[in-house]
Amino acid sequence: MPTSPTTLFADERAGSIYRTAARIIYTKGFEAASMSEIAKAVDLTKAGLYYYVKGKGELLFAIMSFAMDLLDREVIAPAQRIGDPGERLRAIVEEHSRLLTYDEGALVILMDEVGSLSPEHRSRITERKRSYFEFVRDTLDELAAAGRLHAVDTTVAAFSLLGMVMWLARWYAPGGRLAAREVVRDITEIALRGVLREGRPEAVSAASSAVYSEEVLS
Amino acid sequence: MPTSPTTLFADERAGSIYRTAARIIYTKGFEAASMSEIAKAVDLTKAGLYYYVKGKGELLFAIMSFAMDLLDREVIAPAQRIGDPGERLRAIVEEHSRLLTYDEGALVILMDEVGSLSPEHRSRITERKRSYFEFVRDTLDELAAAGRLHAVDTTVAAFSLLGMVMWLARWYAPGGRLAAREVVRDITEIALRGVLREGRPEAVSAASSAVYSEEVLS
Repeated sequence: MPTSPTTLFADERAGSIYRTAARIIYTKGFEAASMSEIAKAVDLTKAGLYYYVKGKGELLFAIMSFAMDLLDREVIAPAQRIGDPGERLRAIVEEHSRLLTYDEGALVILMDEVGSLSPEHRSRITERKRSYFEFVRDTLDELAAAGRLHAVDTTVAAFSLLGMVMWLARWYAPGGRLAAREVVRDITEIALRGVLREGRPEAVSAASSAVYSEEVLS
Repeated sequence: MPTSPTTLFADERAGSIYRTAARIIYTKGFEAASMSEIAKAVDLTKAGLYYYVKGKGELLFAIMSFAMDLLDREVIAPAQRIGDPGERLRAIVEEHSRLLTYDEGALVILMDEVGSLSPEHRSRITERKRSYFEFVRDTLDELAAAGRLHAVDTTVAAFSLLGMVMWLARWYAPGGRLAAREVVRDITEIALRGVLREGRPEAVSAASSAVYSEEVLS
């Protein structure tokens, strides 16, 4: 497996460099954003930035990989440890929403700019996105098999829930009227009620989670 | 009120010209798409295309205005005639989803490319988008006031439902496994269940709609 490009900037500045670069590319558009401008914004010389990445396309790939690494660490890996599919779905929606309330830029680009990547990079990012989608849909399939899902197609349901969550990056402004905590709570309520049969989802899923987590831990 | 740019191409080819141009701009990105390429794809000479629009920015504005006109005609205007807010919400989600299952390109751009518009054009498009958003949120506020909405913030709910619907443009492929009719039905189910208290929404809202529509018609 090739080294993750996240390690290109293998120090604590990495996140801040990627977020700043992401914001510039998002605001100006990929074509219009220049490497000199990005270098200046992250306190590197242009030569310094080119030391790390061969060009703008590679930088974009590094940003997207960084964003997918974040998603893996904050959303996917913790959710994979949850046995009960209802609790797992709740964790996915909740943690992905939470991530988007404080980490908007890079993840927004992720959705829009795959067309600017090289074919090889594009297929690697598309593969990671697909695998996340399938994780969500498999969770819904598990719920459907247990009779816990309303009668909707699980592909449509998975895209609908993800669309709802991803849209956050486009409208939520941190520091506004709505606290991140409330937004995350309401989105999670809407998403779970939309697909689960089990009334107020938390009550049921909290109970079943107690049973299932023991299985997972044993 | 200024003439809508939709009238730039005031014949039946208008829709097809805007859709083709939208697809090219979406696929290549606004910066990379060239006017010659667009002209060729819509069977005009470059001079012919420039006869209608002054440049790529104006073409983009015309496409977005065309898309907003479609939204007005197919979604907003019919929904505004519905008295019962539950039925109105259903009509909004259903008709907007239906629109996106057959008219993907232009509406996708609408969301992404406002940054490429002139400030004046941008504010006109943003204003139309805001007014649609407020129509949806007002409908949710009406439902909340009648005790028919779950306890969620109506701004969060409006963005969540719209995000779910808008996301369609990014994933739905006409002619695939899922028929448009089924996708529209499932998205509407998920959206309405997510926010409305009234169980299977159609039953209740059909009943109350009978009452309210008389009021509207009288």
